Amino acid sequence: MIKVGIVGGTGYTGVELLRLLAQHPQAELRAITSRKEAGTPVSAMFPSLRGHVELAFTQPGASGLRGCDVVFFATPNGVAMGEARSVLDGGARLIDLSADFRLRDIAEWERWYKVKHAAPELVVDAVYGLPEVNREKIRGARLVANPGCYPTATQLGFLPLVEAGVVDLDHLIADAKSGVSGAGRKAELHLSFSEASDNFAAYNVAGHRHWPEIRQGLAQAAKREVGLVFIPHLTPLIRGIHATLYARITKEIDFQSLFEKRYAKEPFVDVMPPGSLPDTRSVRAANVCRIAVHRPPERTGRSDTLVVLSVIDNLVKGAAGQAVQNMNLMFGLPETTGLQHVPVVP
Amino acid sequence: MIKVGIVGGTGYTGVELLRLLAQHPQAELRAITSRKEAGTPVSAMFPSLRGHVELAFTQPGASGLRGCDVVFFATPNGVAMGEARSVLDGGARLIDLSADFRLRDIAEWERWYKVKHAAPELVVDAVYGLPEVNREKIRGARLVANPGCYPTATQLGFLPLVEAGVVDLDHLIADAKSGVSGAGRKAELHLSFSEASDNFAAYNVAGHRHWPEIRQGLAQAAKREVGLVFIPHLTPLIRGIHATLYARITKEIDFQSLFEKRYAKEPFVDVMPPGSLPDTRSVRAANVCRIAVHRPPERTGRSDTLVVLSVIDNLVKGAAGQAVQNMNLMFGLPETTGLQHVPVVP
Amino acid sequence: MIKVGIVGGTGYTGVELLRLLAQHPQAELRAITSRKEAGTPVSAMFPSLRGHVELAFTQPGASGLRGCDVVFFATPNGVAMGEARSVLDGGARLIDLSADFRLRDIAEWERWYKVKHAAPELVVDAVYGLPEVNREKIRGARLVANPGCYPTATQLGFLPLVEAGVVDLDHLIADAKSGVSGAGRKAELHLSFSEASDNFAAYNVAGHRHWPEIRQGLAQAAKREVGLVFIPHLTPLIRGIHATLYARITKEIDFQSLFEKRYAKEPFVDVMPPGSLPDTRSVRAANVCRIAVHRPPERTGRSDTLVVLSVIDNLVKGAAGQAVQNMNLMFGLPETTGLQHVPVVP
Amino acid sequence: MIKVGIVGGTGYTGVELLRLLAQHPQAELRAITSRKEAGTPVSAMFPSLRGHVELAFTQPGASGLRGCDVVFFATPNGVAMGEARSVLDGGARLIDLSADFRLRDIAEWERWYKVKHAAPELVVDAVYGLPEVNREKIRGARLVANPGCYPTATQLGFLPLVEAGVVDLDHLIADAKSGVSGAGRKAELHLSFSEASDNFAAYNVAGHRHWPEIRQGLAQAAKREVGLVFIPHLTPLIRGIHATLYARITKEIDFQSLFEKRYAKEPFVDVMPPGSLPDTRSVRAANVCRIAVHRPPERTGRSDTLVVLSVIDNLVKGAAGQAVQNMNLMFGLPETTGLQHVPVVP
Repeated sequence: MIKVGIVGGTGYTGVELLRLLAQHPQAELRAITSRKEAGTPVSAMFPSLRGHVELAFTQPGASGLRGCDVVFFATPNGVAMGEARSVLDGGARLIDLSADFRLRDIAEWERWYKVKHAAPELVVDAVYGLPEVNREKIRGARLVANPGCYPTATQLGFLPLVEAGVVDLDHLIADAKSGVSGAGRKAELHLSFSEASDNFAAYNVAGHRHWPEIRQGLAQAAKREVGLVFIPHLTPLIRGIHATLYARITKEIDFQSLFEKRYAKEPFVDVMPPGSLPDTRSVRAANVCRIAVHRPPERTGRSDTLVVLSVIDNLVKGAAGQAVQNMNLMFGLPETTGLQHVPVVP
Repeated sequence: MIKVGIVGGTGYTGVELLRLLAQHPQAELRAITSRKEAGTPVSAMFPSLRGHVELAFTQPGASGLRGCDVVFFATPNGVAMGEARSVLDGGARLIDLSADFRLRDIAEWERWYKVKHAAPELVVDAVYGLPEVNREKIRGARLVANPGCYPTATQLGFLPLVEAGVVDLDHLIADAKSGVSGAGRKAELHLSFSEASDNFAAYNVAGHRHWPEIRQGLAQAAKREVGLVFIPHLTPLIRGIHATLYARITKEIDFQSLFEKRYAKEPFVDVMPPGSLPDTRSVRAANVCRIAVHRPPERTGRSDTLVVLSVIDNLVKGAAGQAVQNMNLMFGLPETTGLQHVPVVP
Repeated sequence: MIKVGIVGGTGYTGVELLRLLAQHPQAELRAITSRKEAGTPVSAMFPSLRGHVELAFTQPGASGLRGCDVVFFATPNGVAMGEARSVLDGGARLIDLSADFRLRDIAEWERWYKVKHAAPELVVDAVYGLPEVNREKIRGARLVANPGCYPTATQLGFLPLVEAGVVDLDHLIADAKSGVSGAGRKAELHLSFSEASDNFAAYNVAGHRHWPEIRQGLAQAAKREVGLVFIPHLTPLIRGIHATLYARITKEIDFQSLFEKRYAKEPFVDVMPPGSLPDTRSVRAANVCRIAVHRPPERTGRSDTLVVLSVIDNLVKGAAGQAVQNMNLMFGLPETTGLQHVPVVP
Repeated sequence: MIKVGIVGGTGYTGVELLRLLAQHPQAELRAITSRKEAGTPVSAMFPSLRGHVELAFTQPGASGLRGCDVVFFATPNGVAMGEARSVLDGGARLIDLSADFRLRDIAEWERWYKVKHAAPELVVDAVYGLPEVNREKIRGARLVANPGCYPTATQLGFLPLVEAGVVDLDHLIADAKSGVSGAGRKAELHLSFSEASDNFAAYNVAGHRHWPEIRQGLAQAAKREVGLVFIPHLTPLIRGIHATLYARITKEIDFQSLFEKRYAKEPFVDVMPPGSLPDTRSVRAANVCRIAVHRPPERTGRSDTLVVLSVIDNLVKGAAGQAVQNMNLMFGLPETTGLQHVPVVP
């Protein structure tokens, strides 16, 4: 059994981690910390966990994380970078679900996250936890930077095209729609039911923190800088990201086949048959990314643009599920252990 | 492994059965029939099942059900009663998720379901599949009538009071709110998103088919007829029933304690601490009924009315999950086998 | 033209007042105050008002309210009672949409609102602004206490029965369901989309502030104390209250006729035909209460309980619309002036 | 008073027309036909209209349309083209909310609508009812083809750019999101609450009927063929379209200023300040299109792509409201008559 600690388990990625780990056959939850909720039984805060999680939250500084094999950080951005060193020195491996270790360019990170990075020396060794790209490095990693939700859906949708160099890399477009849980478990007016339901709008059009993360991943795959317009939208659903990706074709190939081959051995990427229209509920509460490749009409007799539809559950493949997938890799378990939930439909 | 067949697996109770059985360690899905969809792979109809269910739908009359240990009927009312005899004669046990075998009074059944009952002789032996009442009978049953969703939430909420005879049995009130999936997977205007979302209304106030079913169960517990006003409401949520139950107290006892004792050994009934307010999402996608007991203010210095709040997921404890619970009992498995999913929150 | 001022116009009742007054042919909006937003154009905060409202928010203490004929308080509870005296002394009439002047029993008010009342002497003269009860008094009132949303729906549903004395007045039950906007424009976690959508729960079961308000109104109609169990539920819709009311019949009369006669001349109460099931959207964005009277089955051959279904838009007939209706009465306008919006369906 | 008839008033565009016309000071509703509902009072079908519309539906062939000044067709595609001639011959002017007269290329129309066009000779004289383009022609038109919802939002967003010739006209992209009411008042499974809520997906990616309509309008503005990728998505909201439009810049100008000038005199197009993020609810139930122009980051130090956000209420500016706007123009009324509703927020 892997002894697991969680730092900051009161947000949505935290409670989702708890849901997944409580049902994981090889994980034993040893400690979960929350400064604010220390002493509160986890199941008092989340009645859905009654009968499944017996722990109470403990103080972050407490010795409860001692002896853990792996510690997940499900904290706001800026916390993990301050505590990672001591966790690693204590012998545990670390999976950070926040953004602290995702960008390799420290200056770029500081520009987007508006604080000085507290542990730039750890960024060097951190492995970006997208198994479909970095599987082998993840196995040996001590510190995994778990990808963001938009970056997961967007990179998985663009990667085959970018790696193959068959589209215009200067003008990619990602029109992304996210459920409200992607914003976290927060008391903010614009996230309230009365504001966010029966409503639809773009946000952060002038720049979203996931933009540099996606560009970094695609640039690495392309071995050159890429241009990307990224427009996120807040959508009245709880869970789910739907990324509609546009790329100008520069080389004609069999795109469906390209995607199928790229992901043939991936347990959590489902390239759907031609003509498919993946919906977000088809991945609800499950660790899977479904992708469909389209060539829509554009002009009479001609069509230059490829459209890729990519859906994930932002809390699972976009956060907690991918984190558990990374844990499985790091500890030599079959990658799908504890992650074969059937999506909840309807 | 229990060899399982499903008749009529294209509705919501059917796809939910598939979700649960696909993850059940002791069930092997052998056949699933649908007259209309014969030949279609199940996962083509329900992409959420891609990678989990490999079967295609087959013709109902096909021999595919031969050799099954148990056959679930997830058909519209009126189908199972016509086919039950041949399934039973073929050696399988049968769990009917429709209403065909729920009412012991044939005339009453025919009054509410508006057709002549095709197999009254089977009704005699059918066991009403509410394990919290009929556990021992279910173990030995060949034919189980799986309860309706409202009857499950309502009976579990009223039973301790009715069995103890501590409330006015002539004037029970059940104000019940159901998610839209309770109406089934149907193309009906009043169930459409544009009609049912951002909207709330009562329905079937003049009489709902679950009313006689609830009254039958409570009368059996009371050993006398009971009076019940039952008002169902259509609520803009996908899954979930919230029953708000009102009973006039006739004998003062410790009601919290009454409920806790009644359900102390029940794996799927959670009597919450005093003051709790169970929400439907706390049971979403899980086989559990959560109950809270309240004594709200009524008049200055006096309060005659007990209020019980009871929530279930209508598709799980209110349908497919309870059916699997019954299967576990019938086949001597631990009752919780394959049913310990953590509710999906948020 | 009536010169109108609004104090505290940044909440939902405030913006709804603005929506109604901007389209009111006899009202001229002169000032709207907000301590926090002073200087901000109203339409910058509420883009829906672009082109309709040109004012900017001003400081509460500013002299902007001078010269107003009427001032609406759309403030949190506890504000109006402190400022009412100076507004009245300035010559304006006052309509308070908060709870400050609703309860005539000051001790009771202080028990529920947890602060000392700042202006008990004004409570004596305040008129409870339910036109269907107090129309004549409202015409002459200087200070109107606009009713709460639940109290409006519940009282209008119970009043004919209580006034006629044909039901058991000791054991009324109001099972009420409210849309989320009823909680106000607030950044609170439990009101967030991720928490409140696809979810349903009761709240404040141990006591809601509208309980004494409803009881006061019904007691006045009954000329005696009444017993009432009041259970509110948070429902995933933006606007709308659906009150399901239960009363034990003590005298057999023609109840449909009773309701029709009681409200025959009311422009904003619609007693629907027998068998009707009013839905909340049928009153969405409009100043109307729709009511249906039912006698559901209870026991074999007997039915002792009357069920009344009452729906309103909590922001219109339950708040801002009723306030404008009161303004019309106070200033001698036809009661329906500016209030004949057709409900928005779908 | 303009005497108005409506053919086929049982769909969402029909009931929305009724809502708007019932409040229109210069329109008198004379007849509304429905083959299926003939004899039914309109307000029995739509309780929201109780007290506002006294008419009953009549048979389509009935003489009820005689004497009308204008007849609106709110029928499914394919009906108006068969009946237009007789309506026009009867002396009425006609506004068709369906697609029958929108495409000038009959062969193209027949390709997309899969039937032979019944009145190609009327197409020649029909005026495409987008007032922001065809205002003068509409004034004199006898037959107006009211634009589709997506085409309204998309054309208004692209027009300034296309007219000015400052973007790449071969590769426009419209990523459009629509509320479910855009699909009409239909009993279809994929539109049901249980399927469409808490879910998001693209549809008709291989070709949507609004694609040729948009291309026709933009081509006319550009005076050349344009290339357009159009991807519609079904979104869990009742009303609202959000079009996110992408165009490659070919000439640097002040785009904000371009839009502001283009629409300076338009009463129903609101070019918002730089940085604005229009949300669909800001136009809910109102006849307005709000537009924001953005230049998001793309590559380091360079940005080639312009993003335009355009929102409308699909039932108002995208259907019934625009139809009334056209009626106002045709009958010499101020264009805004009866259309100055304040959007309903929240």
